[in-house]
Amino acid sequence: MKFMFEKGDIVQYFQSLQDTICKGLEQADGLEKFQEDKWIREGGGGGRTRVIQNGNVIEKGGVNFSEVFGPAPELLSKEPATFFASGVSLVIHPKSPMVPIIHMNVRHLSLQTPNSPLRTSEWFGGGIDLTPIYVDEADAIYFHRTLKATCDRFHPSFYPEFKKWADDYFFIKHRNETRGIGGIFFDHIASPPTPLQKERGVIQDVGWGQLFEFVQAIGNVFLPIYTHLIRKNKGKIFGEKEKQWQLFRRGRYAEFNLIYDRGTKFGLETNGRAESILMSLPPQANWAYNFLPEKNSSEEKMLAMLKKGFEWVM
Amino acid sequence: MKFMFEKGDIVQYFQSLQDTICKGLEQADGLEKFQEDKWIREGGGGGRTRVIQNGNVIEKGGVNFSEVFGPAPELLSKEPATFFASGVSLVIHPKSPMVPIIHMNVRHLSLQTPNSPLRTSEWFGGGIDLTPIYVDEADAIYFHRTLKATCDRFHPSFYPEFKKWADDYFFIKHRNETRGIGGIFFDHIASPPTPLQKERGVIQDVGWGQLFEFVQAIGNVFLPIYTHLIRKNKGKIFGEKEKQWQLFRRGRYAEFNLIYDRGTKFGLETNGRAESILMSLPPQANWAYNFLPEKNSSEEKMLAMLKKGFEWVM
Repeated sequence: MKFMFEKGDIVQYFQSLQDTICKGLEQADGLEKFQEDKWIREGGGGGRTRVIQNGNVIEKGGVNFSEVFGPAPELLSKEPATFFASGVSLVIHPKSPMVPIIHMNVRHLSLQTPNSPLRTSEWFGGGIDLTPIYVDEADAIYFHRTLKATCDRFHPSFYPEFKKWADDYFFIKHRNETRGIGGIFFDHIASPPTPLQKERGVIQDVGWGQLFEFVQAIGNVFLPIYTHLIRKNKGKIFGEKEKQWQLFRRGRYAEFNLIYDRGTKFGLETNGRAESILMSLPPQANWAYNFLPEKNSSEEKMLAMLKKGFEWVM
Repeated sequence: MKFMFEKGDIVQYFQSLQDTICKGLEQADGLEKFQEDKWIREGGGGGRTRVIQNGNVIEKGGVNFSEVFGPAPELLSKEPATFFASGVSLVIHPKSPMVPIIHMNVRHLSLQTPNSPLRTSEWFGGGIDLTPIYVDEADAIYFHRTLKATCDRFHPSFYPEFKKWADDYFFIKHRNETRGIGGIFFDHIASPPTPLQKERGVIQDVGWGQLFEFVQAIGNVFLPIYTHLIRKNKGKIFGEKEKQWQLFRRGRYAEFNLIYDRGTKFGLETNGRAESILMSLPPQANWAYNFLPEKNSSEEKMLAMLKKGFEWVM
């Protein structure tokens, strides 16, 4: 079996996606520009890290493109193999607690066993999830409805399965809390479906072409979603209490990223560039011992929504 | 083989150590008191979490005692076994960047295989390490010299071996930086020496009684060391630049604790009480993309000292 795509097509799409997103976010921010650092990975490949800091809307955000390859780390393959991975990954931490944190990632991975060059495998992965500091229900419904509409263009099972996957993945086990209001998450999707994909119930074979289009649709839907959320919320008034709640919730975000996030783990364990991987960390995070919101406060109500299985669209 | 100690002796020492340290730190702080939360672990055991916040000197600090037991997690034993672990663990985050962060832990662990009750094993572990925001060389020498003097009372190999162990353990691999200026670290020390102990070169058998006394000496030396460092440094003037550097270095501390710290991992994976385990996190931490100190600044000079193998005493 040969690779289903010219790698160039995928890499080209990811690079142009990074360009489009950075341009769109700069417009939405209105003040700051992304700074680019090109880096080269010792084992093979490299990337373009783009970071924006201290903007009008965005306090700290990173939009990374990378294509890395070389001997596959044990995490990926127990037998000797080479891997080729490319993708775009972003995390945006807005200044205002009224604008949610967002994360998006789309990626393609292929593995080749050198001793038997016919044995290759490849798959797509990705996801978008939203982490509001206060949950605006209209925003949550808009977010999930938009993701569902995007998924539904490819297969009716995609949204429910990938939504459930996000609930399971973006989960802070030691806090028994989801990271935010979820979104979609998928990994190891291929044609024909991979064992993991089947285990997760996404068993329909939509074909390679459709899968690549789906990944592009997810990448492309990020900008309209997030610029809408910025426009709608950036002008909202907030005070010290809301700012403190944001800093505290950002602590949870840091806990998730450093303890559970597979991309972070994969990056650090494969000696990736630490500053590019950890651009996802918040500009500031606070921890107070046993901090509990007041009874019946909007903070307490918001916490009650950080549960798996919350359905925002029917 | 039966256990070498009445468990009560060890637990009683750890509890009185927690009492002594909390009292001493309250005196050194001069304003705030520790608040205690007693908690019960579902699988067996529990603890006394004591936290102090927003003091004169201490911004956030926790001094925890715990004794937990039950079926051994896979981390501890591959065959079915019961474990009993007790210890004191503390982390202090001072308000002033001129006072270093400190961590101390002493612990005892035993494993018993139920099918063959004669097969038990037990060991001590522990350590102290110092994380200055700015390295005061006199303080660093005082810190290591005091630890060396304490170790030397038991065996001349203890300080050099445990100092090296601390360099290896308190290391932030993805940053290629030590967490601070090290100290001592030891694990799985027993009589006769355990395989791990032999591997680390600590091969002399000082006997169980001496080992328990050594662990007590380490626990007891914490308070004089840290109250000295507080008294000497709490009045030093600092400005916004020093405060920012502290917040940035605390980000590294959070990275170490959430990614590498074995106690944190063990606690979270065995469903420990998250608030007690994560009391070690700083009250506030900042991350800026690719933040580098100015050339020849005291911040840059300090970074150069975060290397393994720095010898502070001969």
